[in-house]
Amino acid sequence: MLEQIKVVTGNTHYPVYIGSDLFSQASLITQHIFTEQVMVVTNDTVAPLYLAKLQTQLQAYQCDTLILPDGEAYKTLATLERIVTHLIERQHHRDTTLIALGGGVIGDLTGFAAACYMRGVAYLQIPTSLLAQVDAAIGGKTAVNHPQAKNLIGAFYQPRAVFMDITTLNSLPEREFKAGLAEVIKYGLIADATFFNWFETHIDNILARESFTLTYLIKRSCQIKADFVAQDEQDKGLRMLLNLGHTFAHALETGVGYGNYLHGEAVAIGLCLAAEISESLSNFPASDTLRLKRLLAKIGLPLTLPETLSIKQLLSLMTHDKKAKLNRLTLILLKKVGLAYCEHTVDIQWLYNYLKHK
Amino acid sequence: MLEQIKVVTGNTHYPVYIGSDLFSQASLITQHIFTEQVMVVTNDTVAPLYLAKLQTQLQAYQCDTLILPDGEAYKTLATLERIVTHLIERQHHRDTTLIALGGGVIGDLTGFAAACYMRGVAYLQIPTSLLAQVDAAIGGKTAVNHPQAKNLIGAFYQPRAVFMDITTLNSLPEREFKAGLAEVIKYGLIADATFFNWFETHIDNILARESFTLTYLIKRSCQIKADFVAQDEQDKGLRMLLNLGHTFAHALETGVGYGNYLHGEAVAIGLCLAAEISESLSNFPASDTLRLKRLLAKIGLPLTLPETLSIKQLLSLMTHDKKAKLNRLTLILLKKVGLAYCEHTVDIQWLYNYLKHK
Repeated sequence: MLEQIKVVTGNTHYPVYIGSDLFSQASLITQHIFTEQVMVVTNDTVAPLYLAKLQTQLQAYQCDTLILPDGEAYKTLATLERIVTHLIERQHHRDTTLIALGGGVIGDLTGFAAACYMRGVAYLQIPTSLLAQVDAAIGGKTAVNHPQAKNLIGAFYQPRAVFMDITTLNSLPEREFKAGLAEVIKYGLIADATFFNWFETHIDNILARESFTLTYLIKRSCQIKADFVAQDEQDKGLRMLLNLGHTFAHALETGVGYGNYLHGEAVAIGLCLAAEISESLSNFPASDTLRLKRLLAKIGLPLTLPETLSIKQLLSLMTHDKKAKLNRLTLILLKKVGLAYCEHTVDIQWLYNYLKHK
Repeated sequence: MLEQIKVVTGNTHYPVYIGSDLFSQASLITQHIFTEQVMVVTNDTVAPLYLAKLQTQLQAYQCDTLILPDGEAYKTLATLERIVTHLIERQHHRDTTLIALGGGVIGDLTGFAAACYMRGVAYLQIPTSLLAQVDAAIGGKTAVNHPQAKNLIGAFYQPRAVFMDITTLNSLPEREFKAGLAEVIKYGLIADATFFNWFETHIDNILARESFTLTYLIKRSCQIKADFVAQDEQDKGLRMLLNLGHTFAHALETGVGYGNYLHGEAVAIGLCLAAEISESLSNFPASDTLRLKRLLAKIGLPLTLPETLSIKQLLSLMTHDKKAKLNRLTLILLKKVGLAYCEHTVDIQWLYNYLKHK
């Protein structure tokens, strides 16, 4: 079973394939390579599992490989420079294709390297984590982190194609798999109450990683994200709704240091905070906040800030976030399950008092 | 006298103003700022001359300033990070406008910072060197250098408007002014024999920096470049002709270390090499090579490689240049004055022998 959806943006469109054992399907990947050179960028966790399989598909090319250390801590300008140095040393010219094989960090880094190297070369995304498959690999947002804020240096740059191999999720550590589910729940919350209900009903099948269930879960998530991207590639309006919970999550990750929380775990906490604030600012039903928390708890995701980070510290970090404007905050909030909106004028002092006494 | 041309690209178009004392013309610059925040990026040579004048036009904004050290040596990812850090610390959000006040290095750096910061903010170009006015500030090519090659990490990212103040050229050191003329001669060579003739005829007026002459020189140069950019924003075909002499120049600059040659000086040598090679590969008249060399010599620009860099070293560096493909070289050559073309299959071994015995 090979599912396919299409991502449409202003200048281009590209396919997203979703299925099992994609690496063994001859020409599925290579039909999207129009160059003689390719460079696979991956990390030391993913490489032992899938690199050899991928390379067997790439024997007709000058195929170079760069294996980076695993982790968000390496999503930096220094690593970008390392990728570029590797490309120069192997004499990759403008007609090369980069292939990102790994999770969201590898995808963001490789995509940004493709955007910058010689002012832009082609790239493909092969996301191997649930988080990357349902979120990062769709939509062309690429970036590296700055010591003071996540994803602050980057580009909108679309891949030529995306390949989501459900089989790779089997090897995903429990903690990472669960973290990825936070983004899936987010899609239900912002755009599709029916999908949220489906998720609640099928939680056991999901946690058991049933192949059929996961294929649907990923396809529906990608479709929701692709719909947002099609309407707002440059993240100037509608696409901001995808950031539900993320302003909190980014600040949390910065505050406790990259790598202590998985992104999805930080998002889970952010979703709970957004729901609680929505209760006060847009009459989001408290019963739905409870529903959300029960679902996240069932998965085993965190619901509250760690003791090491105060509300005050969190809010201070949020004013440095790229969605913040002067002393007001823009937050994505919920009107009901399946309907998000953008609240531009949240007063930071009010927010502090509200969250402190919640 | 305020001249204006329009640069048209696929997604956008923007005006280029050419005239005297632009800083004192109220609202000329600010009519292109649609944000509450601006950040002027400049260097320690230009700042004492023009920063205060510019700031008087920007009193209605949150106007921050970053003054960088002057020089190509600072066109690095490290300086990009410094600009980004400054933007974060002053809490600049996505609705900010960067203003590049300086030569080509400041323009390339600031443009790339604008392209990357939060995945893209607005920017204006105020080029203050001749080289930047006739070349770098038009067309949206932004970049930083990599230790092994110039302009290797960058983006195509267009400014909102460009302001070319002829008055700023009065303060330009003799050596820089002359270096800038190499790019102007290049425009004549690749696209406009009449302009090349005009340049020869008016060389004394040009070297005397007569205001009327310079305004025409800059306007015609910008128009030629804008015509190329309009037809090929992403540098995939026609725009490559603008690189006449540049593959040599970039390798030369890398080989002797950034900063030893001004870019225009390296381009002058590159133009001579391109003309000589064209004699053999496309029957470019030797008499026109001589004409070119006489003109460059009259200005005082270098015509030959320095003794510290051999032909062999130069060619080795050129295979790392981003226009090189495997063991063949792509070179921009001349059929006659006013007509350039792209030669894709120059054999490196042949080139070595030819240049060694020329």
